[in-house]
Amino acid sequence: MSTLFSKIIAGEIPCYKVAENEKFYAFLDINPLTKGHTLVVPKQETDYIFDLPDELLADMMLFSKQVAFAIEKVIPCKRIGMTVIGLEVPHAHIHLIPINKEADMFNRHKLVLEKEAFEAIAEAIAAAFLG
Amino acid sequence: MSTLFSKIIAGEIPCYKVAENEKFYAFLDINPLTKGHTLVVPKQETDYIFDLPDELLADMMLFSKQVAFAIEKVIPCKRIGMTVIGLEVPHAHIHLIPINKEADMFNRHKLVLEKEAFEAIAEAIAAAFLG
Repeated sequence: MSTLFSKIIAGEIPCYKVAENEKFYAFLDINPLTKGHTLVVPKQETDYIFDLPDELLADMMLFSKQVAFAIEKVIPCKRIGMTVIGLEVPHAHIHLIPINKEADMFNRHKLVLEKEAFEAIAEAIAAAFLG
Repeated sequence: MSTLFSKIIAGEIPCYKVAENEKFYAFLDINPLTKGHTLVVPKQETDYIFDLPDELLADMMLFSKQVAFAIEKVIPCKRIGMTVIGLEVPHAHIHLIPINKEADMFNRHKLVLEKEAFEAIAEAIAAAFLG
């Protein structure tokens, strides 16, 4: 059975996509901690990030770096924080979170955004990613 | 002026070291979220993790993976979570945190451990790393 993220990658479940290459897919978290909060996932379904083969894990970080730079171009922030938790969806994913203070990483009050806001953010990051 | 972490790497400030290679250094966080909470830092002083050169960033993830596997051998947990915040010490570092539930990543009540407990944990992880 494919994971939620594989269904998103396959287009079976809609998302606000920001970037893609042959190995990875990036889209906005629909329960964002801050504006621009993005998830990066490998197209290859692997539950635990540290079970990814070395080359794919290394590439995932480099793809995340490129996505982070695109987010920074669009979202005013001090930098992009990163978390990997992985206990909810059994498909490895890196959270990229624009932060201005440490507490932004641990905010319990997720943002509620309208569809139009998500679309505008995703389009802007996608354009920045393509450069 | 060298960072706190460069002073730790240089041995000017003591730490509970768990692993080292030519590029990276890993030691226990002295304000751990859970037992075994470890910091991985590059020996090259760079403030923002995404400013590391691609090869070093990729290698940092692969070194972190090896350290994570060593921690897992020693600390009972479901997996190793990961965060990068980076607003406090201007020297890129990855937090590796043994977790059993999502809340372990966001615990506001840091553990207080005795020196002997830190030493025992660090020695066990170091042995598992060399494995």
